[in-house]
Amino acid sequence: MNPSLTPQEVRLLCRQGEFKSPTPGFASGYTQANLVVLPKSLAFDFLLFCHRNPKPCPVLDVTEVGDPEPRIVAPGADLRTDLPRYHVFKHGELVAEVTDVKEFWRDDFVAFLIGCSFSFESALINADVPVRHIEENKNVPMYKTNISCVSAGVFSSPLVVSMRPLTPGDAIRAVEITSRFPKAHGTPVYLGDSSQIGIDDINSPDFGEAIAIREGEIPVFWACGVTTQTALKQAKPEIAITHAPGHMFITDMVDG
Amino acid sequence: MNPSLTPQEVRLLCRQGEFKSPTPGFASGYTQANLVVLPKSLAFDFLLFCHRNPKPCPVLDVTEVGDPEPRIVAPGADLRTDLPRYHVFKHGELVAEVTDVKEFWRDDFVAFLIGCSFSFESALINADVPVRHIEENKNVPMYKTNISCVSAGVFSSPLVVSMRPLTPGDAIRAVEITSRFPKAHGTPVYLGDSSQIGIDDINSPDFGEAIAIREGEIPVFWACGVTTQTALKQAKPEIAITHAPGHMFITDMVDG
Repeated sequence: MNPSLTPQEVRLLCRQGEFKSPTPGFASGYTQANLVVLPKSLAFDFLLFCHRNPKPCPVLDVTEVGDPEPRIVAPGADLRTDLPRYHVFKHGELVAEVTDVKEFWRDDFVAFLIGCSFSFESALINADVPVRHIEENKNVPMYKTNISCVSAGVFSSPLVVSMRPLTPGDAIRAVEITSRFPKAHGTPVYLGDSSQIGIDDINSPDFGEAIAIREGEIPVFWACGVTTQTALKQAKPEIAITHAPGHMFITDMVDG
Repeated sequence: MNPSLTPQEVRLLCRQGEFKSPTPGFASGYTQANLVVLPKSLAFDFLLFCHRNPKPCPVLDVTEVGDPEPRIVAPGADLRTDLPRYHVFKHGELVAEVTDVKEFWRDDFVAFLIGCSFSFESALINADVPVRHIEENKNVPMYKTNISCVSAGVFSSPLVVSMRPLTPGDAIRAVEITSRFPKAHGTPVYLGDSSQIGIDDINSPDFGEAIAIREGEIPVFWACGVTTQTALKQAKPEIAITHAPGHMFITDMVDG
């Protein structure tokens, strides 16, 4: 697969069933997004949850009821087919992993696209701030914290964070850089002593993989889009559809 | 009335029926807000309209369904009683101007608090950027433009703007200052030749009052919260409640 594909080309390949792999590295420079699809009856609660928790849940686009086209971030795209892989949940349980969701789509569905950290990681690397999990070719380590999101209707969740180890100087630079990405989790939520935010063992992440923290480095924590997944698990909606982890929707928006 | 009252004191006086006047100048330094109350059935569409149009409609707080307490910006307050004056609309028509809305309140109501320009006007004055309508003791002039808001469900509206005349140097300074107030309409949406945004006669505003534009000054336009009122008028909801113009809700948030 050619990594210099455009967003339109990746989406068309997904639609044709010819692209089923994780999206990091594809359509470089374009914003990738988390997907959450819910019935209209839960859409207000979920949009309010996102509004109240903009760092883990920065909303890039929301579709009109029943319409699978994200008109603001990717006119012409179809969210039922244009991601490489989906997870379908019923009452909070994963019931299917599929490459399109046409058979599950309903007239009362609303789709939410939520920013993701890929957007700022490219900017960090471009500024010579190291991103360890990419260097180690691993998934970023993610942790449930003892920080509660602000709940909204049926949705509540602990804040889930991702961690990147940095020297103090790079940490400061990373705050500067990520402050320019409010739609991709923005600045870190915490840095330093991880026990203060309820992380007992930094080497045992709740999601993703452990990575090396070198001498002189401190862990730096960003709010993470996986927070939406834990909120869905707790709310147990009748039905919900998300992207499969790492298999994001690629928008026409340029990062930064 | 003492202008150095705290937000809590102003709200209590409203609740007791002893404060019924416009709020500019009261509880100086605290954020004042527009109020929009709608049935839950329209809450998703309205929140999405605000999300898609954050300059005219910056959301400060949204209540849980049926709950009149804005827990984020003013814990303990009661939006049914704590504003000096309300407008009640049925099917888009004003049917009552009242000093509390207890008799109209329903279990399915959701209240939205939207930022207002008072927040940044104090900052302009503190930076010696003149605010003409305050100097002239008038209401700010407001205009319907030919710019369309992004619609959401039943809500659509032309963008309504407020205008402050400034020298080019002060206009640049005003952009710098208001960029720090994203929850109070943020930076201007336009400056200069007003015919380009559909304003035929700058001396005949659609709302508020005309003010002097002096030689060497250009009109500078900010998105305005009255946009929510025009959106409500077009959507004609069964019932809606707003603050009466100028009679805002005073939050516990500090401006800026």
